[in-house]
Amino acid sequence: MTDKIVAARVHDVRFPTAASGDGSDSVNRGDYSACYVELHTESTGPEPDTFGAGLTFTNGRGNEIACAAVRALAHHVVGLTLEEIVAEPMVFWRSLTADAQLRWLGAEKGVIHMATGALVNAVWDLRAKRAGRPLWQLLADMSTEELVASIDFHHISDALTPDEAAAILDRGREGRAERERELAAAGFPSYTTSVGWLGYPDDKVRALTRAAYADGWRAMKMKVGGALADDLRRARIIRSEIGPDALLMMDANQVWDVDEAIANMARLVEVDPYWIEEPTHADDVLGHARIAREVATASGGRCRVATGEMAANRVIFKQLLQADAIGVCQVDACRVGGVNEVLSILLLAAKFGVPVCPHAGGVGLCEYVQHLSIFDYLRVGRSLDGRMVEYVDHLHEHFVDPVRVIGGRYQLPTVPGYSITMKPQSIAEYSFPDGPRWR
Amino acid sequence: MTDKIVAARVHDVRFPTAASGDGSDSVNRGDYSACYVELHTESTGPEPDTFGAGLTFTNGRGNEIACAAVRALAHHVVGLTLEEIVAEPMVFWRSLTADAQLRWLGAEKGVIHMATGALVNAVWDLRAKRAGRPLWQLLADMSTEELVASIDFHHISDALTPDEAAAILDRGREGRAERERELAAAGFPSYTTSVGWLGYPDDKVRALTRAAYADGWRAMKMKVGGALADDLRRARIIRSEIGPDALLMMDANQVWDVDEAIANMARLVEVDPYWIEEPTHADDVLGHARIAREVATASGGRCRVATGEMAANRVIFKQLLQADAIGVCQVDACRVGGVNEVLSILLLAAKFGVPVCPHAGGVGLCEYVQHLSIFDYLRVGRSLDGRMVEYVDHLHEHFVDPVRVIGGRYQLPTVPGYSITMKPQSIAEYSFPDGPRWR
Repeated sequence: MTDKIVAARVHDVRFPTAASGDGSDSVNRGDYSACYVELHTESTGPEPDTFGAGLTFTNGRGNEIACAAVRALAHHVVGLTLEEIVAEPMVFWRSLTADAQLRWLGAEKGVIHMATGALVNAVWDLRAKRAGRPLWQLLADMSTEELVASIDFHHISDALTPDEAAAILDRGREGRAERERELAAAGFPSYTTSVGWLGYPDDKVRALTRAAYADGWRAMKMKVGGALADDLRRARIIRSEIGPDALLMMDANQVWDVDEAIANMARLVEVDPYWIEEPTHADDVLGHARIAREVATASGGRCRVATGEMAANRVIFKQLLQADAIGVCQVDACRVGGVNEVLSILLLAAKFGVPVCPHAGGVGLCEYVQHLSIFDYLRVGRSLDGRMVEYVDHLHEHFVDPVRVIGGRYQLPTVPGYSITMKPQSIAEYSFPDGPRWR
Repeated sequence: MTDKIVAARVHDVRFPTAASGDGSDSVNRGDYSACYVELHTESTGPEPDTFGAGLTFTNGRGNEIACAAVRALAHHVVGLTLEEIVAEPMVFWRSLTADAQLRWLGAEKGVIHMATGALVNAVWDLRAKRAGRPLWQLLADMSTEELVASIDFHHISDALTPDEAAAILDRGREGRAERERELAAAGFPSYTTSVGWLGYPDDKVRALTRAAYADGWRAMKMKVGGALADDLRRARIIRSEIGPDALLMMDANQVWDVDEAIANMARLVEVDPYWIEEPTHADDVLGHARIAREVATASGGRCRVATGEMAANRVIFKQLLQADAIGVCQVDACRVGGVNEVLSILLLAAKFGVPVCPHAGGVGLCEYVQHLSIFDYLRVGRSLDGRMVEYVDHLHEHFVDPVRVIGGRYQLPTVPGYSITMKPQSIAEYSFPDGPRWR
C-alpha cells in the first residue's frame, strides 16, 4: 500500500484567551493559537484516504507568519509517499531544516523551525494512524536502529554519538512491558500550572490551589517575575495551602537578568521551590549555568534550574546539558523540529542524567507531550523520578482525542496517532480572521 | 517640526543569483533577496514628506515570510512621530522585541527579529536623513548619554553595564576628529569574499585571486567545508597567488561538527589562515570555545575563530565573548534588531577586546555595515588593528548611494541616511513574484 501526500492544508486557528488573564505571565499575554496543518493522502491500497495532523503553538498575533512558513516548506512534503519518508527519515528531515534558501531564516530556530515542527509532527501522526497505534506505542515498538536513523546527530556528535544513543535505546528494551503496565494502571505523573498565573488576584490563587490539592495535585507551578514582594506573598499563600511536602515550582518566563535572578532566588528559596523555570533569556546557556550554581548554593541543593520551552533546537539543549545549566529539561513538542529532534533531546538528557518534564499548556501541547514522556519512560529515561508532564486545563475540548488527566496523572492515550487532530467544527469556528468567533 | 510615520510599504525584492554559483558555499545557494520597507512620513514643518528605508537580507525562498513579519510588527511604528521614537528609544525598541504575542515567535531570533532589524534600521535611516548626515556621522556626533539610552541592557547587564558602556563611549570622544580625517583620506580597510566561492572551479579561483591582488586586496576569504582535499587544494592556490604576507580567511558556514572542525583545521592551518569563520552551528557557544582553543594550539596562536552573521542577538554575542569563543566579531546589520542592538554588540566586543569585522555581501549589507565600522572606529573600538569590512562585488547598482571601494578600502559615505535606499526602478523590476524579471 502507498500513501501519497497530495496536499498540505494550513489553518490559522486562534482562541480569544487574552481577555481572561489565563496564560498571563511576566512577559506573555496572548490569544492561544495554532498554526494547524493537515497532510492529506491518496492511498493506492484498500484503506481509505486519510490525513496526518500537526500544529505549532503561537501566542496570537503572528500566527499568520507561522502559517506562511509552513506553506513555504510544504513543497518538501507534498508529493512524497509516507513510505519514502519512512525509508530515509534524515533525507526528509534535512530537506526541511537544511533547505539551501530557507535555512537563512533560522537556521533551526524561530518561525521557520516551528513550522518544521508542525510538518514533521503531521508526518508522525500520519504514520501512527496508519500503524493503528498511538504515537508513544509506535515509537516504543520501533527498533533501536530505526530510532537512531530518525535522529540528526549533526552538531551534537560531540555530546552524543549514534552508538551511545543505540546503547541507551537498547537498555530501554529491558523491562519495557512492565513499565507500560505500570503506566496503564496508574497513569503518568503530572503537575498543574493553572493555579498561579500573574493575572490572578490572591484570593483566586488561594482558591485554585486549594481546589487543585483536593483534586489530587501534589505539584503546582506559579508565575514569578513581578515585584519580588508580590512573588513572595503569592508563593507563601500557595505553600501554606499545599503544606511542606508538595512541590512548588516557579516560572520567571525569562524576565530577569542573570544577577537579578540570582538575587531574587536568594529570597524566594524561603518557600522551598523545587525548580526555577526560565530564570533568564532562553539563549543564555552560560547565564543559566551561573544561576544554577548560585541557586543550588542558596537552597542547599534543593532548588534546580529548569528551561526549554523556548530553547530553539538540540544544539541549545546540548549546551545546557554540557554546562550543567539545567536540572530539568523542558522540551517543547513543536518549537523544535518535531518528533525527530525531540528524540535527540530525550537521549541527550538521558546521557547527562537530567529528567525531562516537557513544556505543555497552550493549544494542544498537553495532547502532544504525553506521548513523548511515555516513550521517554518506556525506552529512554526508564525512571519516573522527577518526571512530570505539565498540565493546564485549557482548550482540550477542541481536540478529537483530548488528554485525560485523573487525580493528577495523565492516562495512556489509546487512539491511533499523535492526539493532535482538531475537531473540524473548532477549526471552522476559530479560524482567523474569517471564522464566526473573529468576524 | 514633526515627522509622523503614516505608512510602512513593504516590498519583496529578489535577484536571480542562484544560477550563477555566486554566493554558493557549503550550505547556502540562493537568490539574494531583500525584505525592503519604506516608512513614509507626513511632515508638519517646511521640509517635504520623506521616508526612511530599511531591509533585511534573505536568501530567496521565504522572503515573503520576512515581509509578513514586518507587516505584523508595523503597527508599532506607524502612527508614531520620529520625535516620539527619539525621545524614548527603548520604549520603541522593546515595543518590537517584547511584543507580548509576537515574542513567542522568537524571542529575539529568526524571522521576527530580522523583521525588527528592517524596521529599526528604517527609523535610523529616516533620522539620519532628517539630520542631513550619513548614519555613521549622526551616531558619532551623539552624546554618550543618548547612545547609552539607545541600548537595551536587558539580559547583558552581567557582561556590560550602562556605566561601562558610557566610559567606553566617553573615551571615544578623544581623538575622534583625527580618526575621522584619517578615514576620509585613506578609507576603511576591507577584505574580499569574491574569489573563493565553492561553486567556482580552480582556474576561476586562481584568476579571481590574481585580479583581486592586482586591485590592491591584501585580505581574501575562501569558502571551505567541501571535501578536505578540495579545500586544501583551493587554499594552496590562493596562498600561492597572494604570497605569505597577505591574509587568507576561511569560512565553513557551519557545516562541521565540533570535533570535525578541530580535525579539519589541524590540516588547514598549513596555509596559515588568519581566521576560520563559522566552524560549526551558530548557536554553539561552547563548541566555538572548544574549537577556538584547539585551533589556537594547532596554529601556534596565529588562527582565530570568527562568527556572527547568524548569531541571533546580543545574548549570543555576550556569551561568545564571555567564553573566549571568538577572536573576531562578525555582527550582521539586520539579523539582529537593527542599529540599537548593534550598538550593544560593538560595546560588548570593545569591552572584551575583540575586533569587529561585520558580515557583508548579500543585498545591501555592504551599504549598511560600512556605517557601523566607521562609527566603531570613531567612538568605540578606536583602532583599525584587525578591523576589516567584508566586501562582495554584487548588486550595488540597485542602491541610490552604493558603496565606493577603492584599492581595497571603503570610502566614507557622505549622503544623508543609512545608504540603504533602493532605486525605484530596481524595486519594480525585481519585485517577487510580479516584477518583469520574475513574471
